[in-house]
Amino acid sequence: MPAKKAKKATKKAAKRKSASAVKYSYDFGQKTDGSSKLRELLGGKGANLAEMARIGLPVPPGFTITTEVCTYFYDNGRQYPKTLEKEVKASVAQIEKEVGKKLGADKNPLLLSVRSGARESMPGMMDTILNLGLNDKTVKALASESGNEAFAYDCYRRFIQMYGDVVMGVQAVNENDHCPFEACLEKLREEAGVELDNELTADDLKELIKRYKAIIKKRTGTAFPQDAYEQLWGSVGAVFSSWQNERAILYRQKYGIPAAWGTAVNVQAMVFGNMGDDCATGVAFTRDPANGEKVFYGEYLINAQGEDVVAGIRTPNAIAQLQEEMPKAHADLEAVRKKLEKHFKDMQDFEFTVENGKLWMLQTRNGKRTGLAAVRIAVELVKEKLIDQKTALKKIPADSISSLLVAVFDPAAVKKAKVLTTGLPAGPGAAAGKICFTAPDAEAVAAQGGHAILCRVETTPEDLRGMIAADGILTSRGGVSSHAALVARQMNKVCVCGASEVVIDYGSNTLTIGDKVFKNGDDISIDGTTGEIFAGAVDTAPSEVDQVLNGKLKAEDSYTFQMYDQVMKWADKHRKLGVRTNADSPDQAASAIAYGAEGIGLCRTEHMFFEGDRITFMRQMILASDEAERRKALKKLLPFQRKDFSGLFKAMGGLPVTVRLLDPPLHEFLPHDESSKRELANSLGVDVDVISNRVHALHEANPMLGHRGCRLGISYPEITEMQARAIFEAAAACYKLKKPIKVIPEVMIPLVGFADELKNQVAVVHRVAAEVMQKKKVEFKYLVGTMIEVPRGALTADEIAETAEFFSFGTNDLTQTGLGMSRDDAGSFLGKYKDLDILPQNPFASIDATGVGQLVEIGAQKGRSTKKNLKLGICGEHGGDPASIKFFNDVGLDYVSCSPPRVPVARLAAAQAALK
Amino acid sequence: MPAKKAKKATKKAAKRKSASAVKYSYDFGQKTDGSSKLRELLGGKGANLAEMARIGLPVPPGFTITTEVCTYFYDNGRQYPKTLEKEVKASVAQIEKEVGKKLGADKNPLLLSVRSGARESMPGMMDTILNLGLNDKTVKALASESGNEAFAYDCYRRFIQMYGDVVMGVQAVNENDHCPFEACLEKLREEAGVELDNELTADDLKELIKRYKAIIKKRTGTAFPQDAYEQLWGSVGAVFSSWQNERAILYRQKYGIPAAWGTAVNVQAMVFGNMGDDCATGVAFTRDPANGEKVFYGEYLINAQGEDVVAGIRTPNAIAQLQEEMPKAHADLEAVRKKLEKHFKDMQDFEFTVENGKLWMLQTRNGKRTGLAAVRIAVELVKEKLIDQKTALKKIPADSISSLLVAVFDPAAVKKAKVLTTGLPAGPGAAAGKICFTAPDAEAVAAQGGHAILCRVETTPEDLRGMIAADGILTSRGGVSSHAALVARQMNKVCVCGASEVVIDYGSNTLTIGDKVFKNGDDISIDGTTGEIFAGAVDTAPSEVDQVLNGKLKAEDSYTFQMYDQVMKWADKHRKLGVRTNADSPDQAASAIAYGAEGIGLCRTEHMFFEGDRITFMRQMILASDEAERRKALKKLLPFQRKDFSGLFKAMGGLPVTVRLLDPPLHEFLPHDESSKRELANSLGVDVDVISNRVHALHEANPMLGHRGCRLGISYPEITEMQARAIFEAAAACYKLKKPIKVIPEVMIPLVGFADELKNQVAVVHRVAAEVMQKKKVEFKYLVGTMIEVPRGALTADEIAETAEFFSFGTNDLTQTGLGMSRDDAGSFLGKYKDLDILPQNPFASIDATGVGQLVEIGAQKGRSTKKNLKLGICGEHGGDPASIKFFNDVGLDYVSCSPPRVPVARLAAAQAALK
Repeated sequence: MPAKKAKKATKKAAKRKSASAVKYSYDFGQKTDGSSKLRELLGGKGANLAEMARIGLPVPPGFTITTEVCTYFYDNGRQYPKTLEKEVKASVAQIEKEVGKKLGADKNPLLLSVRSGARESMPGMMDTILNLGLNDKTVKALASESGNEAFAYDCYRRFIQMYGDVVMGVQAVNENDHCPFEACLEKLREEAGVELDNELTADDLKELIKRYKAIIKKRTGTAFPQDAYEQLWGSVGAVFSSWQNERAILYRQKYGIPAAWGTAVNVQAMVFGNMGDDCATGVAFTRDPANGEKVFYGEYLINAQGEDVVAGIRTPNAIAQLQEEMPKAHADLEAVRKKLEKHFKDMQDFEFTVENGKLWMLQTRNGKRTGLAAVRIAVELVKEKLIDQKTALKKIPADSISSLLVAVFDPAAVKKAKVLTTGLPAGPGAAAGKICFTAPDAEAVAAQGGHAILCRVETTPEDLRGMIAADGILTSRGGVSSHAALVARQMNKVCVCGASEVVIDYGSNTLTIGDKVFKNGDDISIDGTTGEIFAGAVDTAPSEVDQVLNGKLKAEDSYTFQMYDQVMKWADKHRKLGVRTNADSPDQAASAIAYGAEGIGLCRTEHMFFEGDRITFMRQMILASDEAERRKALKKLLPFQRKDFSGLFKAMGGLPVTVRLLDPPLHEFLPHDESSKRELANSLGVDVDVISNRVHALHEANPMLGHRGCRLGISYPEITEMQARAIFEAAAACYKLKKPIKVIPEVMIPLVGFADELKNQVAVVHRVAAEVMQKKKVEFKYLVGTMIEVPRGALTADEIAETAEFFSFGTNDLTQTGLGMSRDDAGSFLGKYKDLDILPQNPFASIDATGVGQLVEIGAQKGRSTKKNLKLGICGEHGGDPASIKFFNDVGLDYVSCSPPRVPVARLAAAQAALK
Repeated sequence: MPAKKAKKATKKAAKRKSASAVKYSYDFGQKTDGSSKLRELLGGKGANLAEMARIGLPVPPGFTITTEVCTYFYDNGRQYPKTLEKEVKASVAQIEKEVGKKLGADKNPLLLSVRSGARESMPGMMDTILNLGLNDKTVKALASESGNEAFAYDCYRRFIQMYGDVVMGVQAVNENDHCPFEACLEKLREEAGVELDNELTADDLKELIKRYKAIIKKRTGTAFPQDAYEQLWGSVGAVFSSWQNERAILYRQKYGIPAAWGTAVNVQAMVFGNMGDDCATGVAFTRDPANGEKVFYGEYLINAQGEDVVAGIRTPNAIAQLQEEMPKAHADLEAVRKKLEKHFKDMQDFEFTVENGKLWMLQTRNGKRTGLAAVRIAVELVKEKLIDQKTALKKIPADSISSLLVAVFDPAAVKKAKVLTTGLPAGPGAAAGKICFTAPDAEAVAAQGGHAILCRVETTPEDLRGMIAADGILTSRGGVSSHAALVARQMNKVCVCGASEVVIDYGSNTLTIGDKVFKNGDDISIDGTTGEIFAGAVDTAPSEVDQVLNGKLKAEDSYTFQMYDQVMKWADKHRKLGVRTNADSPDQAASAIAYGAEGIGLCRTEHMFFEGDRITFMRQMILASDEAERRKALKKLLPFQRKDFSGLFKAMGGLPVTVRLLDPPLHEFLPHDESSKRELANSLGVDVDVISNRVHALHEANPMLGHRGCRLGISYPEITEMQARAIFEAAAACYKLKKPIKVIPEVMIPLVGFADELKNQVAVVHRVAAEVMQKKKVEFKYLVGTMIEVPRGALTADEIAETAEFFSFGTNDLTQTGLGMSRDDAGSFLGKYKDLDILPQNPFASIDATGVGQLVEIGAQKGRSTKKNLKLGICGEHGGDPASIKFFNDVGLDYVSCSPPRVPVARLAAAQAALK
């Protein structure tokens, strides 16, 4: 879907471009062109800066270069539209007018920041330039005007460092290389005999600036530019270019953000949180982003620039402390907090700077939050009457309901385990695993199927792959708005951050807490809900929701359950799609019912043939030389199957149960290695050659496209007969229970591509049903339908619907055949396809709406053209994927079916789909 | 397509049935209801009997029960429509009126024949009853009225025998069992001391009838029925039932006749060719059906019933002899012959009876003919101005042009070989193979890939499977209208029949000609064009057409070539579709050009990687551990590929050449058995484990849906680069020849499902093209396009067409993915699907128009919605199949591409498609 959207956006942009006067730069400040409605064009940051300016919040003036320029930039060999330069000059002039300073002027020089801002926030993925406009002359003006020479030269050296790195590409050459600027800075600190950067004198900094310039000249052959406009265009180009850096690409892949969206660039007058002790900079949330609680939450640093907070170099103070240190600023912030929530009607995550006691707002956006927090905030915003039920449903990413269902640490085990220390709870949940000090370590552990806890002093965007791979993240430094906390929040990853008693030493690869020393690979457990850290792997227990559903905890004792229950009730009120489950056993069925499943959409009968004696009889059936022998073996399987269905029917208590007849090719049931073949030969009393020959004869070049599905039932109608008999006899028995269960079995014929295939099998099913009803002297209803899982089935659905009483789209196989792509084999190239943006989403996880979805649409439309009320469902993996559920809702299916733990997600996603 | 037609027909019938008064019985004779236009309803025989009656030919009166009754019969548990009985009674009454006789009457009893008659002729496949109406009383009347008691009782015993067999099911119980009636007849002949049936006296026959009745009573428990109407309904039911006998089903499968068509039943007043020596019965063709020559052609027997001629029990006389024996009848026949051709405007195959000197016509139909005859007759009918060019084109089954291209015996070899004897040339062509005396023997030889010559005294429908399997058919008895000749004609099978000097002894399994004795499995050669039989396997030579095309024979010396050339010229004038060929080598290309190919539609480059050193370099490439190593191996492959393309471009002399880039998964190029792996390891100087690991790593569960096609080129762009370079460098060299060849290469990217896949590969191709042009200092045009061979490609063709300059539908893979059916694995169930009529045609041979065809239509329409003049072709196996070609013509493709020998067939089929 995003790909489609992206395309539309691009087309729209193309259309706009064709108009004679396209506006590429939008001002904000006293003159404000944009608003939060122009998010696609201005990016999130730019749109909200404009919006804040509109509602009277203190925003330093600036302008936003639109995302269309980014698209143009990449479509035209990194050139800009011709009219851009003129617009930028006008926008700069507007800032100059509003602040009374001038870019590059020797007196009152205007300093600018240049920041990225995509439609969706991509924190830390792209580049930023601060203090732009400084040069050898303007720095002197800044020094004299601020009366703080050290501050001015610190600004200048920071600017040169950033510009040198980001724009001019002066970076560490390899892993062993230090960042040349950092190395240089370290050396100067040593020479000056100071520990912290802010202890350096103006003269130290002047020396540093000289050395920085020399590094740039040496590494690039070019001097650091003194012209402010040259600096501006260099910075704008660097930010646009960073849209396609590796980190940004990886991030977009994970979150399904299309490359075609592009980023906007925000150019804004600088304000300084580092001009002295009446200055500060901070990040705050209107509510707790980890658990959703309604508390003012955030952190700040006195006398610092913004990136110092996020980078975690100095551990910031909690926002409450500001009340003591700067009561006026704190009061202003509280007022802003209230105004923001009232206006944006959602939890906001904002950045601010206090410059000489005056509060400036640098950004606001809907705050990223954990799944738990998303649910809690939505539920409580409704209670507070800020939003209504429908809005609340839309605000909760459907997947986040899963975070209410994840395991917690077992209370009994926690009692026994010793709490080593406590950090900031930044990502709720329980995680236990092996200590990994580097991202590659964590990836390696995960690749082996193990659990990793990534332990870092602080994380950086370079750690992203490792954070994805790990079960949990632990940092010793950095607050709740540090990179670790921020990313963990977005990924719903268990995270404890800023655990200051934890000492991580990369040199010795040890993690020390008090006198306890842990090595790489040792087990550790972290509770992201409480912030507690335990030695060893602590046992887990079902979530509170599960405990309530299983009667082990009372609903009134669990706020988590109450929120879950509230959201599910809202969802059920609004959704149109039914939600069923894929289940093959009574246990699974019971669990799904507890989660709200309204029936079984797919019971795979083949799983039933592997246990105990069954596999032996199954193999006898496959090895039979004629129908009579086959029937003999099938007769032995019948009672097992009947018992299976009986169990399922009872567990479902009259809810619909769709049973798919035998689907996989027969060779899947035979042994393939020599010793198993010999064993089977012995047990069946035949020569091992008989087995080998049959295995050989049944071998298939492409089993996915082979002798399976209804093709089996057509070749061996006695199999269909046995299965139908088992279903109907089990149903008949349910009707004869003391408390009869009125089962209406739905018999599903797999892999139908030709109407006559279905006719053939339906005839067998009807015959057996009639026989069973007569023999058992009971009348019951039943349906016979089919899976639509090969393209021909969808394309001839009108013919097939003449016989079918329902369709269930088997989107797994429909994806494999529709794309000509084997799920088992696609791993060898799908990675490359993601890298190249050819297939940004895994089509087996989220439905390929354009291609496979077209087949579903055609199938649904043609099927209903024959039978207006044909029941339509879907039972592939996609049945539990929110984006796919939206698609299925939109094409008018009746229900989705998914695995039991995805049922709550599906209920919520279905409601969201209905509301959109 | 036939299945679709059948469906339409059934729907039409259903519509007709819903009308209040549906007519189920159509009279012919003095009162004639039907005509040749009602073929669907009355079957071929019934429609033409009506037509002959209409144009004044002498037809014994009768009526036709429609094919709708057959459909009704099978849809309603073998019941008839309610109104049928009344209609049949009225029709019988009409016959009684016209001939002045009465069914079942003691005096002047009316005797009837009951024959099947489907829309398409299915000779000998269904049952027939003659002399119906005879019983113990009416036989006496017939005896006295005909003045020939032996004749009357012979008719009666024939009727009892047929009725007992066909209606009452008295048949041989197993292979060793004799037909009980035949055994009984043989015994009586012995007792009477006579050799031939017609030597039996009336008393002998009365005794025989007694014994026949006893057999029936004993075998069935029921007496032979005396009531004429009971006999009639029994016979009608038996004929309808025979529509679903095994023979008929098999025949329909071979010829793609849908079961849903049903048969009509013709009931007709008997006329007798066996009432005495002024009586005769015969079968004739208005032209020679074996070679198409314009001669009166046929055979007859004096004093015999019709089935005697076809069954081959007595060898009949050539029609010319009738001029001497019955000059009047011969003259009448000649007149009929002329009238028939003039009226039906085609070669007719007709049956006649002379009863007491008077000629009666019993059937006429367009005569089945060999491919050679079909061409000749069509060409000559145009010369005679009976039909026009377009009609001629439509009359030649497209496949029959192949019979002009089959090998003939090498004249030099024929000179050396000894002609053992000569039979009747009944199916032109040369066949050499092993003598097989039974159908199963022939099937076994063919199954082993050998060549079989089925040698029978005479063939029966039971031999059908063997006749299909054999390369040639040789019979010692029976004329050109015998079963063998008739079936061979229809199948374009080499056939020599009625070779009376050949003695076949099933007991000793020997075939004797003079003093030469051949055993089962000995080699023999037959020339179906001359009728000659040779010992041993005689060498073959190219057809006359090929000899002319290769300059080894002059066109004016070959009438065969002249006919071929004429038909091809007509075809080229009318067809809209271009015809290209699938060729990978200059040889294949040259041969295809000689057959009229207009370009290469598919050059598969993978075939080029197997010879000599190439496979070694290919394997080096696959085993390479990084891009640099891969490029090293590719560099070695480049000169080979360039040479290949250069050869092709030169052979095609500027005609378009479509080159498909590497398609199959890489594991296809690696060895799989241990010793080959070791060998490769040695030759590459690596450990065998390296090879084994790579083979293991590349193994795929479903290679058809795996890492292949453009997925390879995307993963390893250097492969695409090398292939593109080879193509363009070869093209550049062609432009620099002394006589430059202006090659316009068409580069084809396989297996595209996503527009971005194509974009990715096209970028590589364009880059390489520019490089080559610059380096070689030559400008040339080229196209880049794609194969549409996965459903998603067709469904998103509008997006793909933005980049593609042409589409070629890869209907092989599109069939596999569209139906979810692997060509390699479908063999295990397609047989059953044919038997059950679920899939009457092999979808890999003839396109599944409803399903896969829909994808082609969607792809074509969407592709052209983006690019109006997008060039569209098809390069799957279906490109040489006439029914598929018609489909491709109708959906508006620009060309088909097929293997070289199918090019003439495709040209003709394309013309027919354009004319329809």
